[in-house]
Amino acid sequence: MIDKILSRAVVTGAAGFIGSTLVDFLLSKGVEVLGIDNLSTGRIAFLNDALNNPKFNFLEEDLNSSLDLTIAFTGMDAVFHFAANADVRFGPDHPSRDLEQNTLVTHKVLEAARKAKVKKFIFSSTGSVYGEAQVVPTPEDAPFPVQTSLYGASKLACEGMIAAYAESFGMQAWIFRFVSILGPRYTHGHVYDFYKQLKDHPDHLTVLGNGHQKKSYLHVSDCIAAISQALENSHDKVNILNLGVDGYCEVKNSVGWITTEMGLSPEIVFGTEIRGWIGDNPLIHLDTKKIRALGWTPRYSIEEAVRDTVSFMKSNQWIF
Amino acid sequence: MIDKILSRAVVTGAAGFIGSTLVDFLLSKGVEVLGIDNLSTGRIAFLNDALNNPKFNFLEEDLNSSLDLTIAFTGMDAVFHFAANADVRFGPDHPSRDLEQNTLVTHKVLEAARKAKVKKFIFSSTGSVYGEAQVVPTPEDAPFPVQTSLYGASKLACEGMIAAYAESFGMQAWIFRFVSILGPRYTHGHVYDFYKQLKDHPDHLTVLGNGHQKKSYLHVSDCIAAISQALENSHDKVNILNLGVDGYCEVKNSVGWITTEMGLSPEIVFGTEIRGWIGDNPLIHLDTKKIRALGWTPRYSIEEAVRDTVSFMKSNQWIF
Repeated sequence: MIDKILSRAVVTGAAGFIGSTLVDFLLSKGVEVLGIDNLSTGRIAFLNDALNNPKFNFLEEDLNSSLDLTIAFTGMDAVFHFAANADVRFGPDHPSRDLEQNTLVTHKVLEAARKAKVKKFIFSSTGSVYGEAQVVPTPEDAPFPVQTSLYGASKLACEGMIAAYAESFGMQAWIFRFVSILGPRYTHGHVYDFYKQLKDHPDHLTVLGNGHQKKSYLHVSDCIAAISQALENSHDKVNILNLGVDGYCEVKNSVGWITTEMGLSPEIVFGTEIRGWIGDNPLIHLDTKKIRALGWTPRYSIEEAVRDTVSFMKSNQWIF
Repeated sequence: MIDKILSRAVVTGAAGFIGSTLVDFLLSKGVEVLGIDNLSTGRIAFLNDALNNPKFNFLEEDLNSSLDLTIAFTGMDAVFHFAANADVRFGPDHPSRDLEQNTLVTHKVLEAARKAKVKKFIFSSTGSVYGEAQVVPTPEDAPFPVQTSLYGASKLACEGMIAAYAESFGMQAWIFRFVSILGPRYTHGHVYDFYKQLKDHPDHLTVLGNGHQKKSYLHVSDCIAAISQALENSHDKVNILNLGVDGYCEVKNSVGWITTEMGLSPEIVFGTEIRGWIGDNPLIHLDTKKIRALGWTPRYSIEEAVRDTVSFMKSNQWIF
């Protein structure tokens, strides 16, 4: 159990979709948690339960600020660094954002962890680091990829620093390369965009790209279970693990599930491009043999993950 | 010929070992060159010839300064970004240095190139990005490596940004992963350290590591010829090319060549570690099929490169 490994942990991005779900999980296992979030995209309401738990402390802080995190990190067993700019699509409009919010913030968090002598560092990376993968499903040791997005490049930069810190400073690292994650508290990306469009005009939906972009989705509860499993059972100095499901869907499939779940039959206008935008990856489908060998298996299919996300949105209209 | 491709080029790190050799090469081909260097490790004397050439301009500037390079880059056909912190060994003593001098500076140079609409970006990366390679000789598409040094991690971060910029902003990139480079103007690394030790005390030499660390060395003139060849003949959006020689030597071989070239028979004290220091890579030996397929072949053997370097040092004692 995770509470045998950790007594006290920091979670950055604590009010985010995945971060807040992780916070609730850690608290449910009796782990004391310091959550940090600047609430720029995170929602304080996602921490409603946590804030009522005496084992939770919350620090509203921008990790890009000049605050030295070393004192806050002192005595912690682990840092889960889940704060990030997660907007892939508009990267080219902000050529410095991924560098600042991902690469530089990760370095700052790593430095504080090093100075505070935190021994475990857990990082949310992305399947985007594989660029346009030549091997699909893509394993962790796929051919050295060429980056195609500023977002993927920044996450790769973070991975490299984390591995070098583990090697140089006696830390241990777990780096998770996610496919897109869905489920309750999901507040960005295409399911969110489609739902919002259909809420505003239920009779039509505009889809970027030709709808044949292949996507693989993991439910957030499966994601958290995998992270827990890996912390318990993967003990290398640097543990790099893909998280995803077997198989994939096409964007047009998820459009179908969303409209069905919403009880709508809109006119759907697809684009003509095979990519939705520059840097959009037409196929992220990860080989998950490595995490499965640790005894983990996902409980949600892609369709169930999409439907559960829509179900959350239907009963949580305040997120829009 | 390179002058058919470039009329005007920027070289950062212009007073450095490789940078200054590149400057002289470009000038010899009639290319107009703006050299930039902060002279922190570069030597102005390496630019003596260039400074007498009317096609050369020199800007003494720290790329980490607030100076906006856009104006300087305007009208340039290419940026050769060769400025870097090249000290791998003491990375762990300066956990922010590689980030600041490599990752952040490269981003700044990329941004200026983007704003100035420079179309070609050439970057000096390193075989260190392969970490402890599982495949040797290591090809460009080796299995996705795990970083072992802050230096390698920072160069990988640069590579990722450069590729993403090429993808996002219509630039074309050439990324060269070097083995260690030797030859005239070489002023750091183990041949320099050994020479300096023997100059100070010709009767003994202390070697970090057990001497069996395998190293592959390329002569700087072969390196520049390869870069030129790649610019002329490799036309992908992102061109990633290993530069090195077939085969390798052990550190104890190069010790032998150095002492022979110096006419000395010192007592040699080896360490016991298989690595010279944390993050030292016991084997960097690159597969160079890709650059050889473009018609390039190195003229110097490793032994010749080491001996030529020592010969330069003997007649240029001022560098110490």
